[in-house]
Amino acid sequence: MLQTITWDGQALKLLDQTKLPLEQVYVEIRDEKNMWHAIRDLVVRGAPAIGVAAAFGVYLGVKDYRGPELFGFYDRLNEVADYLATARPTAVNLSWAVDRMRRAAREAGRDSFGAQRPQDAIEVVKKRLLQECLDMAREDIEACRKIGENGLKLLQKVVKRRRAQPVEILTHCNAGGLATVQYGTALAPIYVGKEQGIPFHVWSDETRPLLQGSRITAFELMANGIPVTIICDSMAASVMAAGQVDAVIVGADRIAANGDVANKIGTLSLAINAKHFGIPFYVAAPTSTIDMRIKSGAEIPIEERPGEEISNGLGRKTAPEGSDIYNPAFDVTPAELVSAIITEKSVVKAPYGKGLQALFEERGVLKHTLQKSRQKTKKPKSKSAAKARSKRAARG
Amino acid sequence: MLQTITWDGQALKLLDQTKLPLEQVYVEIRDEKNMWHAIRDLVVRGAPAIGVAAAFGVYLGVKDYRGPELFGFYDRLNEVADYLATARPTAVNLSWAVDRMRRAAREAGRDSFGAQRPQDAIEVVKKRLLQECLDMAREDIEACRKIGENGLKLLQKVVKRRRAQPVEILTHCNAGGLATVQYGTALAPIYVGKEQGIPFHVWSDETRPLLQGSRITAFELMANGIPVTIICDSMAASVMAAGQVDAVIVGADRIAANGDVANKIGTLSLAINAKHFGIPFYVAAPTSTIDMRIKSGAEIPIEERPGEEISNGLGRKTAPEGSDIYNPAFDVTPAELVSAIITEKSVVKAPYGKGLQALFEERGVLKHTLQKSRQKTKKPKSKSAAKARSKRAARG
Repeated sequence: MLQTITWDGQALKLLDQTKLPLEQVYVEIRDEKNMWHAIRDLVVRGAPAIGVAAAFGVYLGVKDYRGPELFGFYDRLNEVADYLATARPTAVNLSWAVDRMRRAAREAGRDSFGAQRPQDAIEVVKKRLLQECLDMAREDIEACRKIGENGLKLLQKVVKRRRAQPVEILTHCNAGGLATVQYGTALAPIYVGKEQGIPFHVWSDETRPLLQGSRITAFELMANGIPVTIICDSMAASVMAAGQVDAVIVGADRIAANGDVANKIGTLSLAINAKHFGIPFYVAAPTSTIDMRIKSGAEIPIEERPGEEISNGLGRKTAPEGSDIYNPAFDVTPAELVSAIITEKSVVKAPYGKGLQALFEERGVLKHTLQKSRQKTKKPKSKSAAKARSKRAARG
Repeated sequence: MLQTITWDGQALKLLDQTKLPLEQVYVEIRDEKNMWHAIRDLVVRGAPAIGVAAAFGVYLGVKDYRGPELFGFYDRLNEVADYLATARPTAVNLSWAVDRMRRAAREAGRDSFGAQRPQDAIEVVKKRLLQECLDMAREDIEACRKIGENGLKLLQKVVKRRRAQPVEILTHCNAGGLATVQYGTALAPIYVGKEQGIPFHVWSDETRPLLQGSRITAFELMANGIPVTIICDSMAASVMAAGQVDAVIVGADRIAANGDVANKIGTLSLAINAKHFGIPFYVAAPTSTIDMRIKSGAEIPIEERPGEEISNGLGRKTAPEGSDIYNPAFDVTPAELVSAIITEKSVVKAPYGKGLQALFEERGVLKHTLQKSRQKTKKPKSKSAAKARSKRAARG
């Protein structure tokens, strides 16, 4: 499988997704400024992948810090984290990842309390930050795998109905392995299903304006041996009307506490069409994409991108000089149009308010369990770190 | 206003719409083969414009016929007509126009009965065919003007509600002046409204894959002083959700007897979205677009075009080598999603079966009236022609 993100010990290597499908070029990112641009310019994209990339961006931004003071180090860390968080506004995974790095640094700082020299404490924090990045990448792979398994359960009825015929999935943009570290979200049930010998066929919306569907999703599925047909976004209704779609599965850039889903522009139209034709509309996303701080989709900031992406993005100018262009990168699909949200924890259905809340309550418990199991299976980085964690868990 | 189609006495000049908006190039068409390619390759497009162009194509294909026999001439005419009718399958105006040319030739042939030499009879028929083309062009302008007036009546409530604010229209593809000889169909109410001082703002779907919305509609509206904002097709739902669309108006390539509408791919999705948001969805088309011979949209042939239009149409390859692509040029919107069909005769609402039927019954009467008035105001080409027409009218 193609690697979206690879850490080589010094730099984060990103598969340059703006060059797909014509070229497979890796870009080496060594500082936060280049990471900011890589995120902004969509070299790396997809909410989960953005999160992991941004975390590495934080580490890269502070790893060469040589100041004498831990406070100075934290100042630098916050500066880097604040800066990276501005790269794109909609995907909550970006701020989620950056905040997780801040927390990890604070924890590690407390753990290193009593270090002989501030430089030693700073080194402890740096190590912990790198470990946090690597953990996030590993957790992303695990979460996507789980999303695949949970999503596949949802499709069992369709699999039976289709018998040996391919299950027909329609997807939008790229919520595949190239939007995450591996497996993807929306495409994960297909990959897990394929391992079990279930045949799939995917309708991939090309996804204007930047064509992630034809450039990236089709490329990824073909590379992984899944039959895929590219259509324009405007053709999805036709394919649905012809009875050729069993389920729509998309990813998400941010999910509000009420279940409203911000995702790539065009998702709302798909959801409305799916409802019209009685086709299930599933959203697949890790819990890191759920933003319980915001009540509804109305509060999600929608990134507006340059009009040139529409008028001039494909090598040839396709709109009149001086024309007015509106280019929102995302839209918000209201919860009532969503048949289910597939997370790594479980499949949530309406009422979403309760369901998503329950996910996070359960998550608190699981976090504790995960930490315990980690303590058992891995060498704790320091005894005090493990202690501090158990203490916090006990307090929580 | 830009001229879509101009007859210079020898050739039909077509504004090459594949070159818009970057270049305004006119192509001179002098025979039926070049006309076939001009229609096939979308140099001229839009159902009404295709009809008029095809009629001229028939004339150009026979005007230099030098055979000695009227029967030979008719053979050649049928050959040219059959050939041109294959250029594109969905727009009924193409076969409608070609068949009208056949009828005109038969009528003129009967009128010329008794001519001294077959060559004279052939010349009479040729003249009549050219006249038929010019009539069709003139009638198209008149019909579009009427569609504009009828459509504007439908918008009166919105105009009042908006007060001095622009009326917000969303349209798809190009059903403007450049899809007809002048005024257009979907855009005609806007042009007529503008003359009356009513402000409009148009959201123009770019219309993948060939971008008639951004290349042609935006170009045309800007040239005619109407504010227009280009969006990707997938953004229409977002704009509707934000309350920024008062009505959707689109054209049609063929309307079945039950009111089902074949139009540019993406129309169905728009209609479903409009229904979801409670926004009126209007179809504007001349009665020549209505095909009473077919019962429902299921019988309308849908043209499938090369996948390269999607993967490779904009100067840069945007899909993987060897990928499977589905590219239907049209979709069918069921009558129940259509709020009204605006024709040059009247505005038809559900139940469409009755309403459209009534249009054609009325049309029979009107045809008679039109013929009478033509006899009065214009010199009849021959006395026998006028007589034959009155006789047929009396028989019918």
